[in-house]
Amino acid sequence: MVNFCSDNATGASVEILRALEAANGGTAMPYGADDITARVAARLGEIFETEVAVFPVATGTAANVLALSVMVPPYGAVYCHREAHIHVDECGAPEFYTGGAKLIPLPGAHGKLDPQTLEGAITGAGVVHAVQPAAISLTQATEAGTVYTPDEVAAIAAVARRHGLGLHVDGARFANALVALGCSPAEATWKAGVDALSFGATKNGALGAEAVILFKPAPGMAEEFGYRRKRGGHLFSKMRFLSAQLEAYLADDLWLRNARHANAMARRLGDGLATLPGVALIHPVEANEVFARLPEAMIAGLLDDGFAFYRWGAPEACEVRLVTAFDTDPQDVNRFLTAAR
Amino acid sequence: MVNFCSDNATGASVEILRALEAANGGTAMPYGADDITARVAARLGEIFETEVAVFPVATGTAANVLALSVMVPPYGAVYCHREAHIHVDECGAPEFYTGGAKLIPLPGAHGKLDPQTLEGAITGAGVVHAVQPAAISLTQATEAGTVYTPDEVAAIAAVARRHGLGLHVDGARFANALVALGCSPAEATWKAGVDALSFGATKNGALGAEAVILFKPAPGMAEEFGYRRKRGGHLFSKMRFLSAQLEAYLADDLWLRNARHANAMARRLGDGLATLPGVALIHPVEANEVFARLPEAMIAGLLDDGFAFYRWGAPEACEVRLVTAFDTDPQDVNRFLTAAR
Amino acid sequence: MVNFCSDNATGASVEILRALEAANGGTAMPYGADDITARVAARLGEIFETEVAVFPVATGTAANVLALSVMVPPYGAVYCHREAHIHVDECGAPEFYTGGAKLIPLPGAHGKLDPQTLEGAITGAGVVHAVQPAAISLTQATEAGTVYTPDEVAAIAAVARRHGLGLHVDGARFANALVALGCSPAEATWKAGVDALSFGATKNGALGAEAVILFKPAPGMAEEFGYRRKRGGHLFSKMRFLSAQLEAYLADDLWLRNARHANAMARRLGDGLATLPGVALIHPVEANEVFARLPEAMIAGLLDDGFAFYRWGAPEACEVRLVTAFDTDPQDVNRFLTAAR
Amino acid sequence: MVNFCSDNATGASVEILRALEAANGGTAMPYGADDITARVAARLGEIFETEVAVFPVATGTAANVLALSVMVPPYGAVYCHREAHIHVDECGAPEFYTGGAKLIPLPGAHGKLDPQTLEGAITGAGVVHAVQPAAISLTQATEAGTVYTPDEVAAIAAVARRHGLGLHVDGARFANALVALGCSPAEATWKAGVDALSFGATKNGALGAEAVILFKPAPGMAEEFGYRRKRGGHLFSKMRFLSAQLEAYLADDLWLRNARHANAMARRLGDGLATLPGVALIHPVEANEVFARLPEAMIAGLLDDGFAFYRWGAPEACEVRLVTAFDTDPQDVNRFLTAAR
Repeated sequence: MVNFCSDNATGASVEILRALEAANGGTAMPYGADDITARVAARLGEIFETEVAVFPVATGTAANVLALSVMVPPYGAVYCHREAHIHVDECGAPEFYTGGAKLIPLPGAHGKLDPQTLEGAITGAGVVHAVQPAAISLTQATEAGTVYTPDEVAAIAAVARRHGLGLHVDGARFANALVALGCSPAEATWKAGVDALSFGATKNGALGAEAVILFKPAPGMAEEFGYRRKRGGHLFSKMRFLSAQLEAYLADDLWLRNARHANAMARRLGDGLATLPGVALIHPVEANEVFARLPEAMIAGLLDDGFAFYRWGAPEACEVRLVTAFDTDPQDVNRFLTAAR
Repeated sequence: MVNFCSDNATGASVEILRALEAANGGTAMPYGADDITARVAARLGEIFETEVAVFPVATGTAANVLALSVMVPPYGAVYCHREAHIHVDECGAPEFYTGGAKLIPLPGAHGKLDPQTLEGAITGAGVVHAVQPAAISLTQATEAGTVYTPDEVAAIAAVARRHGLGLHVDGARFANALVALGCSPAEATWKAGVDALSFGATKNGALGAEAVILFKPAPGMAEEFGYRRKRGGHLFSKMRFLSAQLEAYLADDLWLRNARHANAMARRLGDGLATLPGVALIHPVEANEVFARLPEAMIAGLLDDGFAFYRWGAPEACEVRLVTAFDTDPQDVNRFLTAAR
Repeated sequence: MVNFCSDNATGASVEILRALEAANGGTAMPYGADDITARVAARLGEIFETEVAVFPVATGTAANVLALSVMVPPYGAVYCHREAHIHVDECGAPEFYTGGAKLIPLPGAHGKLDPQTLEGAITGAGVVHAVQPAAISLTQATEAGTVYTPDEVAAIAAVARRHGLGLHVDGARFANALVALGCSPAEATWKAGVDALSFGATKNGALGAEAVILFKPAPGMAEEFGYRRKRGGHLFSKMRFLSAQLEAYLADDLWLRNARHANAMARRLGDGLATLPGVALIHPVEANEVFARLPEAMIAGLLDDGFAFYRWGAPEACEVRLVTAFDTDPQDVNRFLTAAR
Repeated sequence: MVNFCSDNATGASVEILRALEAANGGTAMPYGADDITARVAARLGEIFETEVAVFPVATGTAANVLALSVMVPPYGAVYCHREAHIHVDECGAPEFYTGGAKLIPLPGAHGKLDPQTLEGAITGAGVVHAVQPAAISLTQATEAGTVYTPDEVAAIAAVARRHGLGLHVDGARFANALVALGCSPAEATWKAGVDALSFGATKNGALGAEAVILFKPAPGMAEEFGYRRKRGGHLFSKMRFLSAQLEAYLADDLWLRNARHANAMARRLGDGLATLPGVALIHPVEANEVFARLPEAMIAGLLDDGFAFYRWGAPEACEVRLVTAFDTDPQDVNRFLTAAR
């Protein structure tokens, strides 16, 4: 079956599975006191070229909400895009982990927050009746398959700084964004003003591994994160098996190679679709997702032919989302495009 | 290094690593809609011989606190042994997931709750000033390395029923208890009155996999569990990699074989130590843990020799905990006993 | 000073103060086991002509969020108007008391929810990634000073029933709405499909007293409310002093007389302003609030003259809110209108 | 009926009722922006001779748990006596308001914490599996009717300081303790190391009014308290009616006079009972409560005679609690003692 439903319908990179085997020899101290975990933290410090606190966890939701929980008080407000995963796809996990903070969903073209809308939405600071502005969260690459440039991130960070807010990035597809940008990890994040990053690996080749990265955390913040991770049930006893995934993910640029392939497949899909009559791309194809409006007959035909993908938006909108991944077979893209014709 | 610190210092069974590889082919629908997850649920139904709702998660803490969260209101009370993992080793996770319930720690010989103490402690039902009795949680095998017989579980369940409480079992070492008992999984659990089981695999050969099993859940309970697992950040997108661990764990009685080995190693350790002058076993050795009082010189010597294990209890108590596992080398046990002499 | 800032800038009705004195004789059993509390519950049952569970509390926020807390799970969604007090003026109290539910703010003319918008917004039921639709909350009279007719309430209740949601009414100004409607309390509430009412008295003559009224509550719901009120810190030991306020409020139709006066004063204000050049009423004046667009010079002049009221909306919008109350002096209204000319 | 059930079965001091009437003239800005609230804060600063942040609330539970909520993280531990009101009589409110902290109940003679027991119980700092030591809470006067001397408070505060913990005092009966001690309010609190005080008035003559007093609060702490009070539903719109109670309570030493009377009545009761055959006082009578073991026939006879009071402890223990108050009639004490003979 050709499956463009999601990049989480894929398996894992062979290199990562092999790393699990390699990690399996002998005993290792639990709860992150093992060597591999230490090496991953050090490696991420090198990659991001700054002081970082690194916390492996197993799911993207855990990464996002634990990061927010050390940035936002229970009476805080988090500003995010109205299509943000944290707002629409985490069943209230941010509210749970923050102890009741409010997410303020905002509109924005192509899945992106824009500084003006943000600026207008941040209200109530110091007013006892209002939740208190605490953080901005953006998704990179976005839920619309687009990518913020470092300048765009910096413009949002400027709003955050002006109001004393933290800036979190949901990077479930951070690698896809990074290779699209062609800048350094540092330029895409803390140099542009990002405080905390959910560094995703699961969608891009891991079995289930993410890392929360706090850039130059304030005193006590990393320690607090540790307690919150534990009481969230996200501190792995056999941590080496999370960390081994991350180590292999980072080794030999596997993460970047995987992402480049996924992006290339999306581009091929998008370019191919764009040439077909009646097809319109809804968002620019910048990472590994294609959003398109298709003739209803084309959608129905593709589904009949056994291609798997999700309709998007309103039922009658004739919109689809197609997600490519590190292991997408170019022939499958060709087959899809052929069938679509 | 010979390491008796904990069964979570071990790696994983080869069979389980192989299952991950086998699970890696092709796409699979995410979030538990894959075939392996369905097979694991069915298999656990067979093994426990009743209707079950099964929820794979990755950590024991997640299993325990999600189970409690569907049994206990925010204003509820959970009765547990004062050494229970949920009380002393989960950094307040039960309070977090229940929304603020209170754990009532109780004494009891050899890590076990006893019905009379429980009966006396369950107070306040219907009193608006008091947290409301909601659940009992026991650990099987206990934190003292002992095992409740089905009759002992049933006696506690009788107290639970009399007060309208649910009965949860923290089964991080359930396999070790089961092979010690020699009864069926059903006899050890729901037939004795257990409502929910944290069915552990991590300590007994998995990389990181547990299953919450709800026995004949009340209407809506399983659905609620699903939402709570998601908002806890514990719903894996690539669920097949959790479920594959569990499937291999259950296949060909791997779980029971692993536990039998671990228990045998603990018995050998315990029996050997008991013959040494100045050594006293603190608890009966019934599963895979040995608690003993040793001459201080013996403890110091063993540590000097490079054996790894934890002192237990008060610093001056000269007590140690030794944990064996599925992969404990009998020669290491012999070496330890030789060195102790 | 003539003060139209809010009806909570007023004092209390003399009848209510006298009732406190009358309640002061001798001892009374605490926590609501007194006679006055029993009489208030019975009286509200008569007034609403059905089985009710009644819970006096001291603030409107407490009433709203405790009511929601027994209707909405931690992973639930509450649909409300985007100007709803629970969404913008309670500092996240609904999120706190529900354990993390999400409020879904919706647009709607003149402060009112409309059934079509609601119908389109209620999504995600049964989807594990989404917060689960749980309740609708409307404000009566609304934050725009308008009033839902029983038919309008019933149309919203029909949406609620279709989706299995509870219907809560924030009735901080319920008396003002009721006298505007001219229908019975029952017709305005449970006969139109309302499940729970925050029955306000504070803004309409009490010192600080509200009652949560659950109409024909499901089994266990009232008991749960009791525990939640206690652990919220809202169970008064000397409850008689809350209940005495409510008893006096209901006696001899004080609540209706007070509300009629407040509404009449608002009507007089609104009618008077509407005749002035450059003035436009923003919402129909149906209860005790007037929202109007005024020439900037008029606003500045009135403030200079010492009249107290709030600007509303954006700073440059030249909009004001004027709130009248049970004790508004008609001469003050006249003075205001004269000054405005 | 002669009622020794609790000091919350009493009404209010006439002076306090009169203050409500006096406060009722004209409009006042809501939510604590009124003059009376400002005066109360200033007056408490004078009385306690230091910088204070003052927050009126209506219930003792609200005062206690809001105070703890700004001192304790969700993963924190609060050490308290096992009979502490916050542990046994607030239905989990501390867990709710802190977001899930754990109360550690400790034994101690006559309702008092002792420094050695505390010292031994404070464990787990820096251990990620353990809740983190955060605060100590003691009750003054205690639930056993005894009083900590300033030196005893200072010894507990020394433990708190050594471990970096905050020190909270539940002062529901603070006035009773203070007049028993004969020291200054400052000596009994911050000079002995107290950080936050729940300053009770309800049990000692108010209708329902308490003040949380933060002594020299850390930067941001008072602001945080404000948000937490609001989202707890404890910010009164007509705050003047809470503050007026407190102002009258403090005026002309009413609070001290009331407490002196209550204490004297308890002493008279205790002294009288102690002379009776078969009667034993269980705790020293230091404030306004008497705990005594009585012959069963005496208890039954007194209840038959219509005296109201609570049995205490185990049903068969033949123990009673007798609480006196600001308005206890000395003749009622005499009648009780006569009947007891």
